[in-house]
Amino acid sequence: MLRNQDQILSKIANNDGHGENSAFFDGCKAYDSDPYHPTLNPNGVIQMGLAENQAVARFMEKVRGNRVRFDPDRIVMSGGATGAQETLAFCLADPSDALLTNIFLACRNDRDLTWRTGIELIPVVCDSSNDFKMTRDALENAYKKAQESNTKVKGLLLNNPSNPLGTVLDRESLSMAINLINDKNIHLICDEIYSATVFDEPGFISIAEILQESPDSNPELIHIVYSLSKDLGFTGFRVGILYSYNDDVVACARKMSSFGLVSTQTQLLVASMLSDEEFMQKFLADSAARLCARRGALCQGLA
Amino acid sequence: MLRNQDQILSKIANNDGHGENSAFFDGCKAYDSDPYHPTLNPNGVIQMGLAENQAVARFMEKVRGNRVRFDPDRIVMSGGATGAQETLAFCLADPSDALLTNIFLACRNDRDLTWRTGIELIPVVCDSSNDFKMTRDALENAYKKAQESNTKVKGLLLNNPSNPLGTVLDRESLSMAINLINDKNIHLICDEIYSATVFDEPGFISIAEILQESPDSNPELIHIVYSLSKDLGFTGFRVGILYSYNDDVVACARKMSSFGLVSTQTQLLVASMLSDEEFMQKFLADSAARLCARRGALCQGLA
Repeated sequence: MLRNQDQILSKIANNDGHGENSAFFDGCKAYDSDPYHPTLNPNGVIQMGLAENQAVARFMEKVRGNRVRFDPDRIVMSGGATGAQETLAFCLADPSDALLTNIFLACRNDRDLTWRTGIELIPVVCDSSNDFKMTRDALENAYKKAQESNTKVKGLLLNNPSNPLGTVLDRESLSMAINLINDKNIHLICDEIYSATVFDEPGFISIAEILQESPDSNPELIHIVYSLSKDLGFTGFRVGILYSYNDDVVACARKMSSFGLVSTQTQLLVASMLSDEEFMQKFLADSAARLCARRGALCQGLA
Repeated sequence: MLRNQDQILSKIANNDGHGENSAFFDGCKAYDSDPYHPTLNPNGVIQMGLAENQAVARFMEKVRGNRVRFDPDRIVMSGGATGAQETLAFCLADPSDALLTNIFLACRNDRDLTWRTGIELIPVVCDSSNDFKMTRDALENAYKKAQESNTKVKGLLLNNPSNPLGTVLDRESLSMAINLINDKNIHLICDEIYSATVFDEPGFISIAEILQESPDSNPELIHIVYSLSKDLGFTGFRVGILYSYNDDVVACARKMSSFGLVSTQTQLLVASMLSDEEFMQKFLADSAARLCARRGALCQGLA
């Protein structure tokens, strides 16, 4: 477990300026201290606000072949993945701190993030002679360069599967990343927004799986960003998901959630859609088949 | 017009780190330089993204008795009024700057705002001997105190009608506020979230009306925050509205909007609801009558 949580999180996450003396948080605390259970605690407090979190957790597990479990209480919903990244950035780093990243072409959202939070994104330069594979050397080089310019690196932001390349990180690269962030005591943020869009071999491996297989690594350093925009063609509905293995980050992000709540109208739709297992199964299979066919047509045309 | 726009806005608003070299902004620029008009420019570019802005502008005018006009191009939609306040704070002030405010009891959103942005809220202390009326002296005192503690005051945040008091600021107080912010060259943010909920005399007067009657005041210092949550019982749908008379703030807020977009599903509902004039007229009249009756019942019970 972390010793220096104060240093590893941001100043916002560490200050007590938020204040929780409100009915809203009284309700949250009542649930935390006396949670309802059908047989063990039938008179306990029922948390009414997390129905869609359960549906989302089950969906995220399904997309990962049910090889991992997600705890609905560790999910914080946000206004799109952009909002989830912003919230994480505010929780983990201060302005002028940096995150290393494998993001290939800085997309609009990444620029927006840097601009709004003042947190720098430092690209990890991968070698063409090595098929652009992310190596420990490449990460160490980026880390060292940041240190030489007196920039404090607070984490590594991985985009897996990659936008726009469509490539996936293999088991070895993900294990290497977990080892590195543990050695440096920095965060690992995995943007897995395209996780259900992989329609070919090699398949997608979530950081959650690698974490499960790495008993010596510190889970409190790992955070996953997800959204329904890409995998479900749900762009514009602004359903972002932040999943953190760090209790303090979950608590801080939840306090920040008033800045990016999902519309209740959309929450209702999401909960009902994700709970319809038959529809979801068919939708994901159809979507993968269509993407595969389109890729084939495109490659043929280009050839 | 402003001379020192650089100093009056935030560092975020002034830096060019955002970058606009993307297809998204190419589209915006194409519309700006060659806007469609049915007769004057039938081959121009059509801006498809602002349908709900027009509905919102018309609604905001209606709520203000059609005594003012709002330009749909000056509206930036956001994830609730909380999101609108956050965006404005990021545009206008830097961490450790301050806003003076007449907000009576700091509510959760105000604390959240201070916590997340690092911008201080300094209460304007109004005198009980003067029926708690906001006077120039009260504002000057708050401003002076901030200066004495080396805190840079970037604006005045007024909540009108007041939450939780239900009182409204009169014409004299609003004019005084406009004079003060012009004298100090600071911003005036008016949170008019309860504007359609006034069901009794004295009626609500928008800062937009006072601005219209103050030809010598600088419109670039004035910003209005609104939302459908209170007036339409639309809480949870996260429909926030930022209206600014300052072109740079509108541009900066629009670039930030990816952090707090309204769900497209909800946008569709809002545009269709606000465009139904008959329904809106009846809804607002019924709502005012119900609130008035409840206030009567409560007062009678207390008496």
